[in-house]
Amino acid sequence: MTKTKRVLTLFLRFLAIGATLAAVIVMVTSHDSSQVLNLTFTAKYSNEQAFKFFVIAEAIACGYSLILLLTFSQTSLWRLVLILDVVIAMLLSSSVSAAVAIAHVGKKGNTHAGWLPICGQVPKFCNHVTGALVAGFSAAIIYFLLIFSSLYSVQNTLFL
Amino acid sequence: MTKTKRVLTLFLRFLAIGATLAAVIVMVTSHDSSQVLNLTFTAKYSNEQAFKFFVIAEAIACGYSLILLLTFSQTSLWRLVLILDVVIAMLLSSSVSAAVAIAHVGKKGNTHAGWLPICGQVPKFCNHVTGALVAGFSAAIIYFLLIFSSLYSVQNTLFL
Repeated sequence: MTKTKRVLTLFLRFLAIGATLAAVIVMVTSHDSSQVLNLTFTAKYSNEQAFKFFVIAEAIACGYSLILLLTFSQTSLWRLVLILDVVIAMLLSSSVSAAVAIAHVGKKGNTHAGWLPICGQVPKFCNHVTGALVAGFSAAIIYFLLIFSSLYSVQNTLFL
Repeated sequence: MTKTKRVLTLFLRFLAIGATLAAVIVMVTSHDSSQVLNLTFTAKYSNEQAFKFFVIAEAIACGYSLILLLTFSQTSLWRLVLILDVVIAMLLSSSVSAAVAIAHVGKKGNTHAGWLPICGQVPKFCNHVTGALVAGFSAAIIYFLLIFSSLYSVQNTLFL
């Protein structure tokens, strides 16, 4: 692996840690409540399984990249790292999609199923969730770039 | 690539085509209706964005593997195929997760958001969707095995 490649990989790993950490923090701190017909309606991420899955997946990805940075010198493990990168990329893309699907129902509702949108009542919560989803989506893209970069450097040849 | 490896890859590609095709067919044919307070309530996959995304993603994966089988002899393209396999695996895992998130709300509802479960009214629809999700999840696993197998055969060495 050349020095430029190594620096690029390090940079992408730091970006991945930043994005996943931001996603976790922004999602966990999402909280809003409103009064509906004398009842207090509280919205928080832990009320929905998909958002909990999102937080767990982002935290795993963040921890994985942190551990990898500490053991970065062992380039002989590239194949195992590549496999784990694929697993994490699939985990991140699935967690973001699940959270987006629920957030979409929260924003637009689903008239066919009788599910009403809730973002009108708790806009602060919805904005936080949107921010977390953007960070999570960025993390999935960064992991894909890491895989692309690793595969590209397996042999120093261009795509045939 | 040895002959055994080639046969295994071919077998996995056929399995992937079968699983994705099954997922598309079972999801598209999911349909049920019931009478609620003199109103006919019809449930079909096209009423929900996540289920439409699921069908499109599974169809893309199915078409991709079909095209690949026709151009299978060109093993020099392995790097491009591996990158595309990763893209398809991420696409499949995200589409399955989005559909699972919505199906979970359909089955259990979400009392915090006031979303009621609908599976009690349209059990046939829910069973079809569950079948499609199992097929879709299997397809994502098969793609992961394809990536694992490809990476394993990049060089004929074990994990270091």
